[in-house]
Order: sequence, then structure tokens, then C-alpha cells
Amino acid sequence: MSNSEHHVTIRTVLPSATGTFATVVEAIAAAGGAVDGADLVTSGQDEVTRDFTVSVGDEEGASAVIGALETLDGVSVRSVRDRVILRHEGGKIGMRNRVPVSTRDDLAMAYTPGVARVCMAIHDAPEKAWDYTIKANSVMVVSDGSSVVGQGDLGAQAALPAVEAKALFLRRLAGIDAFPLPIAERDITRLADIIERLSSVFAGIHLTDMAGSRSFELLREFRSRKLGIPIFHDDQEGTAAAILAALSNGLRCVGKTIEDSTIVVSGLGAGGTSTVRILVAAGAGTVIAADSEGAIHTGRSDLSEDAAWVAENTNPDGRTEDLRGLLAGADALVGLSAPSIVTADDIRTMAPDPVVLAMAWPRPEISIAEAAGVAAVYGSGRPEDPNQITSSLAYPGIWKGVLSCRAQRIDQQMVLAASRAIAASCGTAMSEDYVVPSVLSAELVDRVADAVRATAEATGSARAAG
Amino acid sequence: MSNSEHHVTIRTVLPSATGTFATVVEAIAAAGGAVDGADLVTSGQDEVTRDFTVSVGDEEGASAVIGALETLDGVSVRSVRDRVILRHEGGKIGMRNRVPVSTRDDLAMAYTPGVARVCMAIHDAPEKAWDYTIKANSVMVVSDGSSVVGQGDLGAQAALPAVEAKALFLRRLAGIDAFPLPIAERDITRLADIIERLSSVFAGIHLTDMAGSRSFELLREFRSRKLGIPIFHDDQEGTAAAILAALSNGLRCVGKTIEDSTIVVSGLGAGGTSTVRILVAAGAGTVIAADSEGAIHTGRSDLSEDAAWVAENTNPDGRTEDLRGLLAGADALVGLSAPSIVTADDIRTMAPDPVVLAMAWPRPEISIAEAAGVAAVYGSGRPEDPNQITSSLAYPGIWKGVLSCRAQRIDQQMVLAASRAIAASCGTAMSEDYVVPSVLSAELVDRVADAVRATAEATGSARAAG
Repeated sequence: MSNSEHHVTIRTVLPSATGTFATVVEAIAAAGGAVDGADLVTSGQDEVTRDFTVSVGDEEGASAVIGALETLDGVSVRSVRDRVILRHEGGKIGMRNRVPVSTRDDLAMAYTPGVARVCMAIHDAPEKAWDYTIKANSVMVVSDGSSVVGQGDLGAQAALPAVEAKALFLRRLAGIDAFPLPIAERDITRLADIIERLSSVFAGIHLTDMAGSRSFELLREFRSRKLGIPIFHDDQEGTAAAILAALSNGLRCVGKTIEDSTIVVSGLGAGGTSTVRILVAAGAGTVIAADSEGAIHTGRSDLSEDAAWVAENTNPDGRTEDLRGLLAGADALVGLSAPSIVTADDIRTMAPDPVVLAMAWPRPEISIAEAAGVAAVYGSGRPEDPNQITSSLAYPGIWKGVLSCRAQRIDQQMVLAASRAIAASCGTAMSEDYVVPSVLSAELVDRVADAVRATAEATGSARAAG
Repeated sequence: MSNSEHHVTIRTVLPSATGTFATVVEAIAAAGGAVDGADLVTSGQDEVTRDFTVSVGDEEGASAVIGALETLDGVSVRSVRDRVILRHEGGKIGMRNRVPVSTRDDLAMAYTPGVARVCMAIHDAPEKAWDYTIKANSVMVVSDGSSVVGQGDLGAQAALPAVEAKALFLRRLAGIDAFPLPIAERDITRLADIIERLSSVFAGIHLTDMAGSRSFELLREFRSRKLGIPIFHDDQEGTAAAILAALSNGLRCVGKTIEDSTIVVSGLGAGGTSTVRILVAAGAGTVIAADSEGAIHTGRSDLSEDAAWVAENTNPDGRTEDLRGLLAGADALVGLSAPSIVTADDIRTMAPDPVVLAMAWPRPEISIAEAAGVAAVYGSGRPEDPNQITSSLAYPGIWKGVLSCRAQRIDQQMVLAASRAIAASCGTAMSEDYVVPSVLSAELVDRVADAVRATAEATGSARAAG
């Protein structure tokens, strides 16, 4: 049972009578829960207080268990706590001080009068902000809340726990000071204005949990502005880098190469479009994309600007079938579309030893259970599956590399370098069940950072030797 | 010598010959420096490397010393470091993580899939953001860079070291997670829009280093918006609370009360106007304000909206003299205006035992040296003077109190309560040289916080019992 499911801790007061404990455990089981633990809190003459930790399927499962307990004679439920919710209580991050504030001397150096000289130095030479402020190691994690962890448009306030998590990971995995800033603004020009007005504090802008079309529009908006620091959308470029790494290793496991393979991409949202772009840049053999209307080809008149680019640069034979038809004979499927739209029989029509990366979130295009024995390599975004493909493999290392050389942009060469470093991190342990390393791999972040930095320095995107 | 002045550490390579050390020390003294220390770094047969730490008056003093050393035979200067600048290197604050990220389980709880449930909970009930995100303990420290620590309009980037310092103090003194956000936007409506769009992350907005007229306009703009969290300008209300505390205690030291005194306020910028408002609210006897044109009275036609309020609510006798004339017979002077505009002779015209708070920054209306023996009580914003009056006495405790009860606003009653708590913190140690406690006083912040919270709860500004 994965962590996505509930583990609730239910504090109950029970009569001390023999047999009550067994009655409670039976009632929980009958309501669909499984008791993971039962800790005694207090024990009196007439009654005892116990914390039952119970696995339940979902919110309704928890309610069913609580309802069942409340109907038991003499049993009362005092409180219900949820392990995942508790983990978020009070927020997951905070501030820390890097200099002492213990004496009058400290105050006078950190603030007035000492600080005036530091402010003047930056006023005279703005690039000194990289040395004398938090700027060089700071990243703004931004979302407009328009597409929050697969739950849709929840708005800025509800995006905060997810945005905080990105800052948490950047600190833990890459030593970067990232601050979460959901911004309640839906007009793209005004959103770009806000990000630009705040950019003096940061060395980079990390976009996340933003609908594909909106994030493309925002990135386009910034092409005509001189932001001076990189802007990066992890659901696009981060996800694409991780997918390319998994796909390269997956194909290698079955004796194929990306250059000689036919790869079908299902879905043309932010992730799908970025994946097509990185596959093309990586020199993939034949790439064919499909949306809900079928293959993307130059004969279609219903294509967005981004989809039109895809039509021009993929599908050389101008195929027009739907996803099912395109899969016949293909070497790999990359799904970034919708749950349960592919069957085991569809996979059977593919070329021998097919690679299936089913990334639809939270439910993949085909589950690992259904793909078992049919796909030679299977990956998804789910943590309980062996090959968990996630942008978290890419962005901590990318930002660490970018910040180490104060890069002014993150270009496709840098993302490709990151992807190759992710793939290489599997080393000799690479196998069908290990086509990407763990997000927590000790070496991963530094390997990616070194590759990104070397590329930035080679292509002139770096600002300074860090 | 205060910390505002330079202490530079100069790394030099000298011949090992006897007498060289003395020659160097003499050269430093001749150039106007004073050697605070001389640490041996390496010692060879022919030459030694030494770090000379030298006090100098200012940037030019440092250059003079370095120039003098470079002309000495056989001596070379390798590097020059500056103690204050070093304190700011890499920034003064950073992020910290409050939850572990060590296992796959941690990842799955902090981010997907676990976080989705937390996001949905906030989407369904936005007030849960106070429990499950950083919001409840987060403050945005905002400046537009229009008036930076007495150096004028330096812009957003150059304001960052000062804004960081406020975040540093809030963390150290009040345990609050504050993030510095200089915003490069000068249009007040658009600045208010940006602050509003970012407000989902924060429990309060702390304005600082912003020109008086602009900050008043911004606060007015927010009166017609439903921000839902307090906005507070420390250069206004924080400074005013500290001044009122110093003034009350100062008058008490000479056997007077604020209710029976005549108080002249020089300067009607952000600090001056707020000080007049709080003096009126505190029931001060007679308040008369003056700007560079003289007394503020209802007969003047050149007054701004804020100054017109001052004219209506002060100066009951309609006096029209200039500052010098107003001082005659007054019990106290509060200066928030310009350097060196008051002389000892002016002070001599005041009532017996005058209280002089000369807050002009960085140089006061009259220096402590000139006021000595003339003013009974003297205070300024300077850390080397005995009574350092600064908003830092007020804002950490005010925010701690506000956040503890999730107050929706900071009203004048709360600021008055903070001021009384600051004054009371001197306790029985109160004297002419101790009319305000130290910013680092262990009890100060909690005393102010308790007073602010009690007031918020009594007046209905509190949102919840924290």
C-alpha cells in the first residue's frame, strides 16, 4: 500500500472490559481498514485510551472506519490524525540565519549603519548583489495554481503545499535556497511583469504546477524580455529530461538505440510537447505524436502553434492513424495523456520488446499489472513502480549546475546534458527495472550539475566561474 | 569608533628584515589608520605574510592606507577584506527544511502522491493553509527601494541587503520566517497588485525602506482592498512606537508626563507624520509639528492630505513660528527631519530639563556631543549613543503578537500597546541614559508580543486563538 493511501491514527476511548479490543479490531476490518498499530495512551480502572493506526483506501475508507467505531457500544472516537497531513503541519520549510545577531556589533554590521555601505556598493555595481546578498543561491518557485499535481486548476493558495515541496527538495538535494511563491494572477503579461519585478532577489525562476498552454505562453513572453536569469518549467523540460534518460536506457536494455527506434508520444500538453522537442533534439529515429484526435501530421488544420511545430518536425511518413494504429510496430510508447487508454493487446501489436513509459498522472495510460509480461520495460510516475520517472531526477541537478556558473539561461543543450547524466547515473546496475536512478541517489545531483555546468561554459551561457 | 566605520584586513607580504614591522605600522598611522591587530599568516626565510586589521574612517581612509603600504620598499599588498562587507557575503539568511527527505516514503508524503490530498484540503477550505503550509509563520518583507537606510532612492536591487537584515532580525528575535522581496515597481496601484497576488503565502506584509509619501499612498490603497492579512510599515508605525516609548520614559525621568508636556515634532515624512499620529492617540498634551516652512497650522494652503490632518489635530493655539521659535518653552523635541538644524542654544530656549530625540539619519538634528549638558535626556537612532531608538525595538514583538493570534490588521491600539510594553521593559533600571531597552533584551519581544496579542483579542482584530 503506497503513501498516497491514507494511514490515519484514531484516538479512541474503550471500556476496560475483556474482549473490547478484539471487537474494535474486527469492526475496523469489517469497515475495510487494516490495523497497523494500537498504542496504549492511558489506562484507567473503567476505560483505556488507545491510538489505532489504520490503513484505509481513501478519505471515504477513513470515514467508514470512524463511523463503524462510533456505533460500537461504549467506544468513543476522540480525534483522527492523518500521517500525510501531519507531515505538512506548519509547513515543510522555514528560514535560517547565516550570520549571528548576538551583540550590538552584529546588529550594526548586519543592519544600520554598516549595511548602508553594502547597499551603496550594489547601487554602484549591481552585479555585486551576486556576492553580498542571497541572490546567487536563491531560486523562486512559481506557480499560478492552474494545474496542481494532477488535480487540475486549484488556484494559488491550494498550490502552496506542492510548491513548498519543490523548495524542500531543492534545499535537501541541491543545497539551494528556494522560496515558494504561488502567484494569484492569470493574465500572462501581468504574471510575467510580477516575476520580472521580483527578479532582483533570485538567480533563477522555477515554474511548476502550471497548465501547459499557459506555461508555454509565459516562456514565450520572456523570450522578448531581458530577465537576465534563467526561467525553467520542470513539468516541461525537467520531465522531458527524465523521460529521455529512461527511454535511452530502456531501449538499450532491449538492444536497441534511440536513433534507430520508432517512438510514439501520446499527449501534447506541456510534458508531451517538451518530450517531442527533446527527442527530436536527441536525434531519435522516428517520432510520431498523437492527441485525442489521432496522429499529429501536417495535414491537420486544428493545430496550435506548438503542435504545428511538432507536425513539421516529426511523423516523416505523414501517418494519420489514431494512437492504437500508430502503436503497431513501434518500439516505444511515451504516454503523457490520459488514464487507461492503452491495453495489453495494444502493446502486443508493437515491435518485439516494447518500452512503455506510461506517465499520465495520477493514473497511467496502462497499469504495471496490465503491462506485466507484455512490455519489456515499463516505467511510470508512480513511486511504487520500479522505474519512477519524475522531474525531480532532473531539476535539482540542473539548478545546482546553473547556479554554480551563474548561467543566464537554461537551453536545450543543457537539458540534454542533464538527461545523459541521469541515464549514466544508473551505471552498470542498469536493467529493465532500473532505467533511472533513485531521486535520492547520492551521486545523481552532482553528476547532473557537473554536466549542465560544463555545457553552459562550453556554449557561453555561463556568467562567471563559480 | 563605531561599526559604521571601516575595519579592513590587509594581507601584506613584507621582507623578514628587522624593523619592517615597525615601518609598516608607522606608515599605516601616518596615513590615518589605527592597527587593531597584526596576524602572522606564513613566515619564510626572506619574507613573511601578515594580515593587518586596520580601523579607518571611511572608504577613502582605506585607500590612503593601502596606497601608503604600496609605496613602502619591498612591501606588497595581496588582498584587502572589509569586516562589514564580509558579514554580508553570500547573503545573511537562507532556507531550512522542517521535514526529512531521506526515504522514498518521505518523498511520497512531502510531494506526490501525498501532497495532492493536502492541496485538495486547502482548495476545499482555504483557511487550512494556516495549518498545512508555511503561511502562519511567514512574513513578506517588501521594499520598492525608494528610500534605503538613509541613502535615498537606490532601487530594488540595492535595497536587498537592508531588506534581508529585517528578515534576519525577525527570525532571530521573534522566530518568524520572513522572506525579503524588494519589488522593482514604482506605480503604487501595480505595487499593491503584486503584493496582493503574492499574499497567499504570507501571514503579514512588512514594508520597509520606502519613501514616506509612497508608503502612505500604498497603505491607503490597501484600505479599499480585502487583503485579509496585516500590512505594516516599520519606518512609520515601528519608529513611532519606539519614539513614544522613549519620550514617555524620558519625560518621566525629569518628572513630567506626556499628557502635560508640549512636544515639537520636526519633519513630516513617514516617520514624523506617524509620530504625530501616535502622540495624539496617546493623549499627549500639546503637539506642534514643523516642516521646512515652519509650523504646521490650519492657515497654511500648501499642505498634503496627511499634513492637513496634522494641522487639524495639533497646534491648538495656531502657532506659526519656524522650528526655532516653536522650541522656546517646549518640553521635548522629536526630530525626524535633517542633520544639524538644531543648536545647543536652541535647546537652551526650551523648558527646564528638555528631552531631545534627534532621529535624522544618518546624522541627527543635533549630535550627542553638542547636546551634552544641555538636553536632560538625549536619544538618536545611532547605535553608539546610549538611547538608540529604532523600529527594531517594536516590529519583532509586534509581528510575534500578530502571528500568534492570526490578527487580520495592525491597528493603532496595538501599536500603542507595543509602545507601552517597550517603555515598561526598561523596568526599574530606567534612567536618562536608558529610556529604551536594548533591541537584544531577552524579555522585550515577548512583552511586546503579549501586549499586542491581548489588544488584538480585546478589540476583535484577532482571527483565532493561536
